[in-house]
Amino acid sequence: MAVQLPAPQAQDLLAIPGVRIAVAEAGIRKANRKDLTAFVLEPGSSVAGVFTQNRYCAAPVQLCQAHLQAGSAIRAFIINTGNANAGTGESGLANARATCLAAARLLGVDEQQVLPFSTGVIMEPLPVERIEAALPALLEQTAQPAAASAAAWLAAAHGIMTTDTVAKAASAKAVVGGKTVHVTGISKGAGMIRPNMATMLGFVATDAAIDAALLQPLVKRLADESFNRITVDGDTSTNDSFLLVATQQAGNAPVNALDSSDGVALYAALRSVAQQLAQAIVRDGEGATKFITIRITGGRDKDECAQVAYAIAHSPLVKTAFFASDPNLGRILAAVGYAGIGDLDQNRIALYLDDVHVVEHGGRRAEYREEDGQRVMKQTDITVRVDLGRGEAEDTVWTCDLSHEYVTINADYRS
Amino acid sequence: MAVQLPAPQAQDLLAIPGVRIAVAEAGIRKANRKDLTAFVLEPGSSVAGVFTQNRYCAAPVQLCQAHLQAGSAIRAFIINTGNANAGTGESGLANARATCLAAARLLGVDEQQVLPFSTGVIMEPLPVERIEAALPALLEQTAQPAAASAAAWLAAAHGIMTTDTVAKAASAKAVVGGKTVHVTGISKGAGMIRPNMATMLGFVATDAAIDAALLQPLVKRLADESFNRITVDGDTSTNDSFLLVATQQAGNAPVNALDSSDGVALYAALRSVAQQLAQAIVRDGEGATKFITIRITGGRDKDECAQVAYAIAHSPLVKTAFFASDPNLGRILAAVGYAGIGDLDQNRIALYLDDVHVVEHGGRRAEYREEDGQRVMKQTDITVRVDLGRGEAEDTVWTCDLSHEYVTINADYRS
Repeated sequence: MAVQLPAPQAQDLLAIPGVRIAVAEAGIRKANRKDLTAFVLEPGSSVAGVFTQNRYCAAPVQLCQAHLQAGSAIRAFIINTGNANAGTGESGLANARATCLAAARLLGVDEQQVLPFSTGVIMEPLPVERIEAALPALLEQTAQPAAASAAAWLAAAHGIMTTDTVAKAASAKAVVGGKTVHVTGISKGAGMIRPNMATMLGFVATDAAIDAALLQPLVKRLADESFNRITVDGDTSTNDSFLLVATQQAGNAPVNALDSSDGVALYAALRSVAQQLAQAIVRDGEGATKFITIRITGGRDKDECAQVAYAIAHSPLVKTAFFASDPNLGRILAAVGYAGIGDLDQNRIALYLDDVHVVEHGGRRAEYREEDGQRVMKQTDITVRVDLGRGEAEDTVWTCDLSHEYVTINADYRS
Repeated sequence: MAVQLPAPQAQDLLAIPGVRIAVAEAGIRKANRKDLTAFVLEPGSSVAGVFTQNRYCAAPVQLCQAHLQAGSAIRAFIINTGNANAGTGESGLANARATCLAAARLLGVDEQQVLPFSTGVIMEPLPVERIEAALPALLEQTAQPAAASAAAWLAAAHGIMTTDTVAKAASAKAVVGGKTVHVTGISKGAGMIRPNMATMLGFVATDAAIDAALLQPLVKRLADESFNRITVDGDTSTNDSFLLVATQQAGNAPVNALDSSDGVALYAALRSVAQQLAQAIVRDGEGATKFITIRITGGRDKDECAQVAYAIAHSPLVKTAFFASDPNLGRILAAVGYAGIGDLDQNRIALYLDDVHVVEHGGRRAEYREEDGQRVMKQTDITVRVDLGRGEAEDTVWTCDLSHEYVTINADYRS
C-alpha cells in the first residue's frame, strides 16, 4: 500500500564503521516476530537526540533524556516494538531502567550508557522479563562480523517496524576533509505521526568525526528539516525519538561548523538520509494512497506558513478528497481560513495544484477547468501550493491522504 | 446511521408567532430536492447572530454581518443548500447581494433587511438565477396559513439538510413575566463541523419580548454553551451561522437581564433548544456510530480544559478506537499529552470511562480490568472524563467517532 516506496535492499545501504547491530525475537507482543533490536557503538562515539514534546512522553523517552543530559558516553540502544511503555507510571520507568541495567551488565558498561526505545501499544505493562531473557543472545550476536554489515542495518529497519508495510532505510556518502564519510539511517512510522522534534523512531549514524558541541544543534536542525516537516494524522506520539550517532572513525578532521565547506557537504548527506527516512514514513503512512507536498509561500514568517500547511495537512475533509482523487479544492481554502491567522485577507490567496493555477484573488480562476484539477488529483504524488500574498516566507510539509484503510488499521490495531 | 437521534415530529414542535416559513425546490445542485428555504419575520422582530471565525468566510456570511451591523430591521432569511457560495470572490458577493435584492423586492423591504445563508460545496459559482426564479412562488407560500405552523418548522429542518441523515429541530416553553413564551429551532450538520462561534447553520426563534441590547450577548452565550462545544472532524466551516430571532409577540415585559428570574427561565428554554440542536449535529455527524461526551476537570482555567478536550475529540486515533469499541485508552493519554499544556504533570492525570476508573497518577490502575473498559466502549453514548489534577476549572465538548462511513461520505460527497 505504500506510495511509490520501494523496499530498501542491503546493497543500497552502507555499513557504518563503529556501529554493530543485531535483531531478535523476544515475543513481546506476538510470537515469531523480530521485536528487539540492539545497536552497540564503539567507544568514542558521540550521540545526540531530539524527542517528542508530548507531555505524556513514555518512560524510555524520559530515561533517554536523563542519560543524555548526564553526559554519559552512550554505548548501546535497545529498541523494542509491540509495547510503547507509555502511560505506565512508575512501574514503566522501573521497567525501562531494568532494560538498561540488563544490557549494561552484559556489555560491561554503566546503565546510563544505554538508551532504551519502545514503540507499540500505549498503557500496557512492558513485559520486561522477556526483554531480559532475550538480551544475552542478542548482545552476543552484536559481536559477530555480520553485525557490522549493511545487511544488519536492513535487519534493524525491519526489526523496528510496527504497522509499517515497508522497511525504511537510506544511505549517503560525502567527502569531508578529504575523507569519504558514510551516513546510514533507519526509521519507522506509520500512524500517530506528527512529530514535534522527531519521528516516532529514527536512527541515523555516520562515521564522520564531528565536534561534540555541534552534535545537538545538528540533530535539531536535521529534525526540523525532515521529521518535523511530516504528518500523517496529527497525533504526536508519546515515543518520538530521533538519534544521531557519530562514530568519529572516518579519519577526517572533526567538523565544527555547518557553514564550513566540510559542514555543508556533511550536512547535505545527513539531510538527504533524514529526508528520505521522513518522507518514507509518510509514503507508508497508515492507509496512504497519495504522497502530498504542501508548500505555503507568501507568508509573513515561516511559522505562519507552517501553521497553514498543517491546517491543510490535518483536515480530514482535505485528506478524504485526496483519497477520492476529487478536486474538491474548496476544502483547502476552508482549511487556510481556519488556520488561525487572524488578519488573513482571503482576497490575496492563490492556490496551485502542481502546475494548475486554481484560485487567484481568493476565488476560482475563470480559466480553471475541473479536468485539469482532476488530472493532478489522480497522480500519486501531488504538490499543493498556497500563496498567502502577504510576505516572502515559505514552508513545506509532507503528508498523505485519509483512506478506508487508515480506519481499518486503527480500528483493528490491537485485535 | 445517526446515534440515538429520533427524527423530530411536527407535534413535538411549537409554532412561533411572528415567524412564517416556506420551502421550495430550486434545483440548485440536484433536481427534486427541497433546497431553498425562506423565513419571513413580522415587523418588530429582533435578530442577532454569531458567525464562523474562518477567515475564508463565505459571501453570505460577509453580507449577513454587514446587514446586521448596519442595524437594519431584519425581515427575512433566504437559505439555500447545494452550494456554499464560499471561495467565490467578488462574483460570490454579487450573487449573495442579488439574492437579497430579489427577495427584498418581492417582500417590499430593503435589501439590507434580508439575510442570505448558503451551505454545500465550496468554490463553485452559485446559480443565483435558479434562486431568483424560485423566489416568487416561495415567498408567496410564506403568506399562506400553513407557513405559520409547527409543520413549517419541520419542513425547514428538512429543507436545510445537506449530508444530514436526520432533520434537527427542537422546541421548549418557559413562563416569562407571567406569559408563556415559545422557543423553536432547527440546525444542520453534518461534516466540516468545528464551529467557532456557531454551527454550520442554526436558527432559533422565540416569541418572547427581549430587550434589543441583550440579544447579541445572549446569542453569543447560547452559542458558547451549545454549538461552540461540538466537533465532528475539526474542520471549521466557511459558512457557520447561528441566528436568534425574538419576535417580541408573547406579551411579556421585555427581558433585559439574564440573571433576573425571567432571564433565567428564558435562558433555560433557549439553551435547552440550542443544546439539543448542537448535540443532534454530533449524533448525526458524518458516519457517526457513537456520541462521546468529553469532560475535562481539574484544570487551571476553562480554556486549557477546552484545549485538552478538543485534542482528544480531534485525534483520529481516539476516534477510530471508539468506532472499533476498543478500549485502546492510551491514545487518549497521548492526546492529553500533546494538547499543548507545556507544564502538564503526567503523574497527576486520572482517566474515567463512564463509571470505570482507568488511570490514576498518570498510569493504568492496578484494579482496572480490560473487560470493564470494553463494556463501556460498546455503548453508543460514552463519557470520557480526564482530571488534570491542577485546578478547579472544567469544560465539556461533544463529539463522535471516525468510521469507514465518514471516509465514504467525504470521498463521494461531490459525485
